[in-house]
Amino acid sequence: MRTDIRERFGIEHPIFGFTPSEEVAAAISRAGGLGVLGCVRFNDPDELDRALHWMDEHTDGKPYGVDVVMPATVPTEGTQVDLDALIPAGHRDFVARTLTELGVPPLPEDEQSGAGVLGWLHSVARSHVEVALKHPIALIANALGSPPPDVIAAAHQAGVPVAALAGTASHAQRHVDNGVDIVVAQGYEAGGHTGEIASMVLLPEVVDAVGDRAPVLAAGGIGTGRQIAAALALGADGVWMGSTWLTAAEYTLGGNGSATQKALLAAGSSDTTRTRIYTGKPARLLKTRWTEAWTSPDAPAPLPMPLQNILVSEAHDRISRSGNPEVVSMPVGQIVGRMNRVRPVAEIFEDLLGELDATVRRLSSDR
Amino acid sequence: MRTDIRERFGIEHPIFGFTPSEEVAAAISRAGGLGVLGCVRFNDPDELDRALHWMDEHTDGKPYGVDVVMPATVPTEGTQVDLDALIPAGHRDFVARTLTELGVPPLPEDEQSGAGVLGWLHSVARSHVEVALKHPIALIANALGSPPPDVIAAAHQAGVPVAALAGTASHAQRHVDNGVDIVVAQGYEAGGHTGEIASMVLLPEVVDAVGDRAPVLAAGGIGTGRQIAAALALGADGVWMGSTWLTAAEYTLGGNGSATQKALLAAGSSDTTRTRIYTGKPARLLKTRWTEAWTSPDAPAPLPMPLQNILVSEAHDRISRSGNPEVVSMPVGQIVGRMNRVRPVAEIFEDLLGELDATVRRLSSDR
Repeated sequence: MRTDIRERFGIEHPIFGFTPSEEVAAAISRAGGLGVLGCVRFNDPDELDRALHWMDEHTDGKPYGVDVVMPATVPTEGTQVDLDALIPAGHRDFVARTLTELGVPPLPEDEQSGAGVLGWLHSVARSHVEVALKHPIALIANALGSPPPDVIAAAHQAGVPVAALAGTASHAQRHVDNGVDIVVAQGYEAGGHTGEIASMVLLPEVVDAVGDRAPVLAAGGIGTGRQIAAALALGADGVWMGSTWLTAAEYTLGGNGSATQKALLAAGSSDTTRTRIYTGKPARLLKTRWTEAWTSPDAPAPLPMPLQNILVSEAHDRISRSGNPEVVSMPVGQIVGRMNRVRPVAEIFEDLLGELDATVRRLSSDR
Repeated sequence: MRTDIRERFGIEHPIFGFTPSEEVAAAISRAGGLGVLGCVRFNDPDELDRALHWMDEHTDGKPYGVDVVMPATVPTEGTQVDLDALIPAGHRDFVARTLTELGVPPLPEDEQSGAGVLGWLHSVARSHVEVALKHPIALIANALGSPPPDVIAAAHQAGVPVAALAGTASHAQRHVDNGVDIVVAQGYEAGGHTGEIASMVLLPEVVDAVGDRAPVLAAGGIGTGRQIAAALALGADGVWMGSTWLTAAEYTLGGNGSATQKALLAAGSSDTTRTRIYTGKPARLLKTRWTEAWTSPDAPAPLPMPLQNILVSEAHDRISRSGNPEVVSMPVGQIVGRMNRVRPVAEIFEDLLGELDATVRRLSSDR
């Protein structure tokens, strides 16, 4: 018999909330879920350290976790300059031309683009783990599968369980074989990196494949209490939600009422696309004029991770600054069709839990 | 308040089973579900009439339905000769070359290929409706959306409710506006014609969009009692299952132990692909060397409905006769990963219902 996931983590509700915003992550933990802070945007370990100190002070002693991005196979490493040299000129030309066509202005002369998201590099992801283990974290999750054995060992030595995302039952089994403690079964409908099997089929497959060896969290398509009930019906021990928090009131990355948030609020469930243009691996993004440009006949094939993200990182900066909702570049799941209002995390939780309870009551009385 | 779908149809369980086999359809109705016979394979109305007479005699007075295929927009009509003339020679060459490469033998000299699936034609689908309305059918479903207004009117005059498949909430609303009585919300994971939104997201969207105006059946990804429970949690009034019956013991189309059934039994949930090569519209098929051939750089783009099906109909005959599981051409959903044993319909029902009850009990006791 599995331990109840709530008991295992000392949380009130079986809701894990992944978000790049420390304000949102802390609010999720305070609301009785487990806030999981995405680390990939922190190129500087000290910056992550400051964010986690802030989390320590704003979670009222409730548990929280972190999410790093370590590809299962070590990607090309190197300095920014090394990696830049691997990007073909034709790709750079396409990005420059596309941004011009989309009316995205260049950066102001006094601003430099950032270094891209170096969190995709193993070395940077490792520094995230090192920093995080100095804080009282309750979970380390890896968005791209099993972390390397020494990272799992270091986490376990610190008493921290490790979670890994899986898009197939065989990936899930491999993670557990590798020592991963919690499997996040991520369906086709999910935002960000995702596979081809939809949650309805994937979840019971993963649950049956790992058996009592690990609890399973359902990721992909979850934004209402009915969907949480469905995930639990399919055998999940809890849910892993990401997209929903992008329109939480506490989410202020990119500024309040940012172009991205405007675009997300307006989008329907058909307005996403699964593409390799964000990182080099298939990831679901909001469908915009930017993603559509990459489907044109003259668009180059996306580069492998981490080169693709470096290629588009200045474009992402320019797009963010342009303030145009029609061209944003943002990972989000099909549940974006439900994200129609900016609401505080506590209110989102209240709705989720109320609908979950009502759904379970309805099912019981129907049978 | 909606009427319980079981009460409305006089069935014991909220399980609608779509199948091209009258033996399977009758077994589903006898097991307490609603068997729905797919008519598209009956090019000759008299043949359908005989099948429905057989159904009348083998359903123990239990209700059953039929499924026709009427595209929302009237496709190219014409005689076989007219339509043949619209198929480019390059497409025929590609099919001939591919079959040779896959080692699929030609038809025996004394056999002619059939006429293709003319059921895609409005005129043929209309004759299906006419024939079916002479039998005591409980439902007419249309696999491609709202039937034409006069078909809906004829069904209603005969007291027969009309169901239509929908892949988006707006399609579902349009169907109900058109007079459709029951919406089948078909998710991305489903076999055959399917959209891009996965069931987890699609179902509550459709349920909320149609409100109390029509019951909603969940299609796509359903093959276990946990999945039925999940569909009900998401707000569906019942489920619409198709793939599962392809490995029922009563399914003998293509012969017992056919190459197709062997291929289905061996396939996992990753072994399907959504492609336009079967009919001209996106449909999920078993991934085989035949479907992969159409993804090669020299493969032509599939033709519009109904031309694509006419193009490949002789190929389908040849593939069926070849007896090679590696090259079959078969619509099936991602649930194929669960179809690992040939079992009688009654046993499948027993498992579905037992697991459904256990799931609802587990959910109630967990909360």
